[in-house]
Amino acid sequence: MAIKFELIKESSECNARLGKLYTPHGVIETPIFMPVGTKATVKTMTPEEVEKLGAQIILANTYHLYLKPGHKLVEEAGGLHKFMNWNKPILTDSGGFQVFSLGKLRKITEEGVEFRSHIDGSKHMLTPEKSIEIQNSLGSDIMMAFDECAPYPSTWEYIKQSMERTSRWAKRCKEYHQDWDRQGIFGIVQGGMYKDLREESVKAITDLDFPGYAIGGLSVGEPLDLMCEILDFTTPMLPKDKPRYLMGVGTPDYLFESVIRGVDMADCVLPTRIARNGTTLTSHGKLVIRNAKYAKDFGPLDPECDCYTCRNYSRAYIRHLFNVNEILGSRLATIHNLYFLIKLMENIREAIKEDRLLEYREEFYKKFGYIN
Amino acid sequence: MAIKFELIKESSECNARLGKLYTPHGVIETPIFMPVGTKATVKTMTPEEVEKLGAQIILANTYHLYLKPGHKLVEEAGGLHKFMNWNKPILTDSGGFQVFSLGKLRKITEEGVEFRSHIDGSKHMLTPEKSIEIQNSLGSDIMMAFDECAPYPSTWEYIKQSMERTSRWAKRCKEYHQDWDRQGIFGIVQGGMYKDLREESVKAITDLDFPGYAIGGLSVGEPLDLMCEILDFTTPMLPKDKPRYLMGVGTPDYLFESVIRGVDMADCVLPTRIARNGTTLTSHGKLVIRNAKYAKDFGPLDPECDCYTCRNYSRAYIRHLFNVNEILGSRLATIHNLYFLIKLMENIREAIKEDRLLEYREEFYKKFGYIN
Repeated sequence: MAIKFELIKESSECNARLGKLYTPHGVIETPIFMPVGTKATVKTMTPEEVEKLGAQIILANTYHLYLKPGHKLVEEAGGLHKFMNWNKPILTDSGGFQVFSLGKLRKITEEGVEFRSHIDGSKHMLTPEKSIEIQNSLGSDIMMAFDECAPYPSTWEYIKQSMERTSRWAKRCKEYHQDWDRQGIFGIVQGGMYKDLREESVKAITDLDFPGYAIGGLSVGEPLDLMCEILDFTTPMLPKDKPRYLMGVGTPDYLFESVIRGVDMADCVLPTRIARNGTTLTSHGKLVIRNAKYAKDFGPLDPECDCYTCRNYSRAYIRHLFNVNEILGSRLATIHNLYFLIKLMENIREAIKEDRLLEYREEFYKKFGYIN
Repeated sequence: MAIKFELIKESSECNARLGKLYTPHGVIETPIFMPVGTKATVKTMTPEEVEKLGAQIILANTYHLYLKPGHKLVEEAGGLHKFMNWNKPILTDSGGFQVFSLGKLRKITEEGVEFRSHIDGSKHMLTPEKSIEIQNSLGSDIMMAFDECAPYPSTWEYIKQSMERTSRWAKRCKEYHQDWDRQGIFGIVQGGMYKDLREESVKAITDLDFPGYAIGGLSVGEPLDLMCEILDFTTPMLPKDKPRYLMGVGTPDYLFESVIRGVDMADCVLPTRIARNGTTLTSHGKLVIRNAKYAKDFGPLDPECDCYTCRNYSRAYIRHLFNVNEILGSRLATIHNLYFLIKLMENIREAIKEDRLLEYREEFYKKFGYIN
């Protein structure tokens, strides 16, 4: 079944929306936070655990899976869903972001990007066609068009030529892909922090008519205010009947601010990455569990949370696990952090439904503070 | 409720027995393999997962918990069961084995053992009284008497004086401990590979009348044949109405051979430790999952196993997880290895019940081979 988006409600207070995204592996209620499973596993978790947290869709990374174990192997295994034992929707990125992050190890041409593997230095070429070919092998429900996510800050000239090439690449992705019932592609709007270029990009990408659109080139180091400004300008230009995906956003404040500006989907490695370092997100802000002050704290991580971790373990125990490098520590913190964001998005959906999102945001910030 | 053992059946073929061990946190069917949770966690696992595998009791290590997080902290948390969220029986060792393993970092006197922490070099003294005091704070169902596990090989003279001191220490442990309804102590028989000393030790330790006995100083590097010979000699001298615990045994062949010789309980870090290196126990022997030949093997780890790992994941996927250092790999291998040994002991109990343990052992070895 081809990707389809149903707009359920628009907020009366702001640009937030409620929606349903239909995919070959199930329906997703939006706005949604998507946990990241870079290498075909959400780090430390089983798929059942991820599902139990309420996750409706996860991400996987094309660049990593292309290098290891290789997309052809995943295809032979019956696709990524079967390989990793996850039967709900999967979104894969295009590999572009990782390849561009390689710095001197890569070279951009009109054809695509030549790069050297960060693992063994071997030479590879990623093109729009190759990216879709890999994602076809992986069999994700939602594929991403191959784009350049330009760094911040970049000059207008650089962003312009990069954005135009991204549009040409998007066209090639669309032409290369065949089975739209099995997998959809989201186009990616670029344009950096330049409104005229954002406008051009929206026009070029939406003209290609994808089943969904990502807003790229944000959350790349710019201040939150600037991100909000660009979102305020960009999302209203996007078609209402298509989902909008903001890549790389995963702190509570960025999630609130982007949903308020019309974003439907977001993902980030932040909650899982900081969890493995012992940093947790709680109703009262960040909590670094290794701190000595928690040594004899026999209360839960977050007294307002009802996740598995908070129902069963004390701060003192979780701190002990981190202190002696036990894997269960990372697991318990990961469970909590993912649950925290998934639950936050559930509450956000509820607040949109009841037209009190702005009020809920204030309540939340009052206790949590800003994370950035 | 004080520790009590009920002998259910003696095999007609060999010295194997079926029993029930009653403890303050529940009843254990013997013979049993006990997973090890050194630092208040069975590495990589949640307690619920350990229980689901069929584990009836776990071990924890006094030495490690004394150093971190400290036994007083565990006591404040409400004891080890509550601290780590495990409500079934726990057995703690005395700390002796770890302290004696410190080599030059420790000094033995009649009083006890002076040692330096392997973590920060700080000086500590472990005595029989201190060991029980720590284990009292932890609140384990079964405590172990403080003993010296002498290395193999050792001279008759060394073993004799060490064994005699162990007996004096056992007496001090018994005298120090108060609440036998809350916690029991197992005495430990020593005597190395010398039958006359084993006999003396059995006499001295059983004279103290503990609710259970461990056979110490075996599985310390001696050949399997020699261990069997000492077991053949030692277990018949132990009282039938008390459980017998062989410390440090956790390979299928050692388990078979010790159960056949009258052992009721065993523990070992082996299944969990090798799991984290990607070595798994299967019906057809050891399987090193990193091997290239499993790269495209889409079958389960062990086709005859019905554990969570084997029901849901392929060798190719598990190999991939190890190749990219994903924690889920260690988790899946740990689940499988523990299940393998727990299930093996279940089968062994069934075989004892039906008086076909020797036949079952032959069947098993024919497929599995010896692991050592």
